[in-house]
Amino acid sequence: MELIEQITNRAKELFDDSKGSHDWEHTLRVYGLCLHIGEKEGADMEILKIATILHDIGRACQDKAHGEVCHAEKGAELAEGILLEFGLDREKIDRIVHCIRTHRFRGSNIPVSKEAKILFDSDKLDSIGAVGIGRAFLFAGEVGAKLHNKNADLSKSAEYTKEDTAYREYLVKLRTIRDKIFTNEGKRIAEERHDFMVEFFDRLNREVDGVL
Amino acid sequence: MELIEQITNRAKELFDDSKGSHDWEHTLRVYGLCLHIGEKEGADMEILKIATILHDIGRACQDKAHGEVCHAEKGAELAEGILLEFGLDREKIDRIVHCIRTHRFRGSNIPVSKEAKILFDSDKLDSIGAVGIGRAFLFAGEVGAKLHNKNADLSKSAEYTKEDTAYREYLVKLRTIRDKIFTNEGKRIAEERHDFMVEFFDRLNREVDGVL
Repeated sequence: MELIEQITNRAKELFDDSKGSHDWEHTLRVYGLCLHIGEKEGADMEILKIATILHDIGRACQDKAHGEVCHAEKGAELAEGILLEFGLDREKIDRIVHCIRTHRFRGSNIPVSKEAKILFDSDKLDSIGAVGIGRAFLFAGEVGAKLHNKNADLSKSAEYTKEDTAYREYLVKLRTIRDKIFTNEGKRIAEERHDFMVEFFDRLNREVDGVL
Repeated sequence: MELIEQITNRAKELFDDSKGSHDWEHTLRVYGLCLHIGEKEGADMEILKIATILHDIGRACQDKAHGEVCHAEKGAELAEGILLEFGLDREKIDRIVHCIRTHRFRGSNIPVSKEAKILFDSDKLDSIGAVGIGRAFLFAGEVGAKLHNKNADLSKSAEYTKEDTAYREYLVKLRTIRDKIFTNEGKRIAEERHDFMVEFFDRLNREVDGVL
């Protein structure tokens, strides 16, 4: 069995697939985007593939700790252990771990390498467009939120309440993602997905108002 | 307080708002559509308004009975009792109850009156378009389904499982709704909402394949 398959099997074991908005299939979609953008941008595909397969293995720990653990930090730590077991050399491990640690991009964890930027972009692209819309509503259903609230108070936290709607997620986060993308091919895809998402929520508001 | 307000307050008490895909706000959206279509089609607005406000009051019973009770039948029965309490005359009650009993349109419960057709159309229109897409994913999240499965086996039931995806709902039900609409104005709105929904799921498939 090839190394990538062995690592894939190991990664899948660490997934809690009870929530469809952040499951193993998210990793597979991000993997598809990474292959596509990686080829265009001339990335080191071995580093990129392994990093992508492992990028969310810390997610279950974050969920169990109700967000007190950062899944990117935890994932980087777990990945280092797994890659040492598989006998990868130190330089490769460091490059892979950098991608995983920075894919969330909070605080000082900035993606620096080409592969880290591509993983970051691909992970964010899966939050916008039709996929992003679907994931936002699916997540709202999982936490018991309602369908829509056009007049949500964005200054107050709504986490895991009825007000934690897809539209709120769009206003607070999803509509800003386009501006955070690093790579050229990522930006091209982000523009298209962004525009469709804007059209969707505009239409949703007009339908709810009974105009369309 | 006007009669419609009193009936509205009574109806709201019968709602279980724990599920966002079929909550009181669905009734409010259907109400908006009924006002719009009712004006265009020259409906008896008193009959239509009261029927719309009460159309889903049997929903909580259906959910509690895990689908063994039909919410349209149960709603018709509950509505009759409420309208007798409010002292409406027999002829009005019969016309309102007919709308509620037939809004789901299963078996022999066919909408015959203009108002029943408008309520049926408005209820169905809330299942398609951007609102319909949002509701389908929200429901999938509520029952723990996954985001997407392009290759779902439609011959097998998937109710309340991980395979109960929004896309499956679209293939099995939502894409057929346009052809069931009765009124002219309803058909006009259904065409637009249908086309947007087709575009959405086509885009979702292509994004998941990594093409867009």
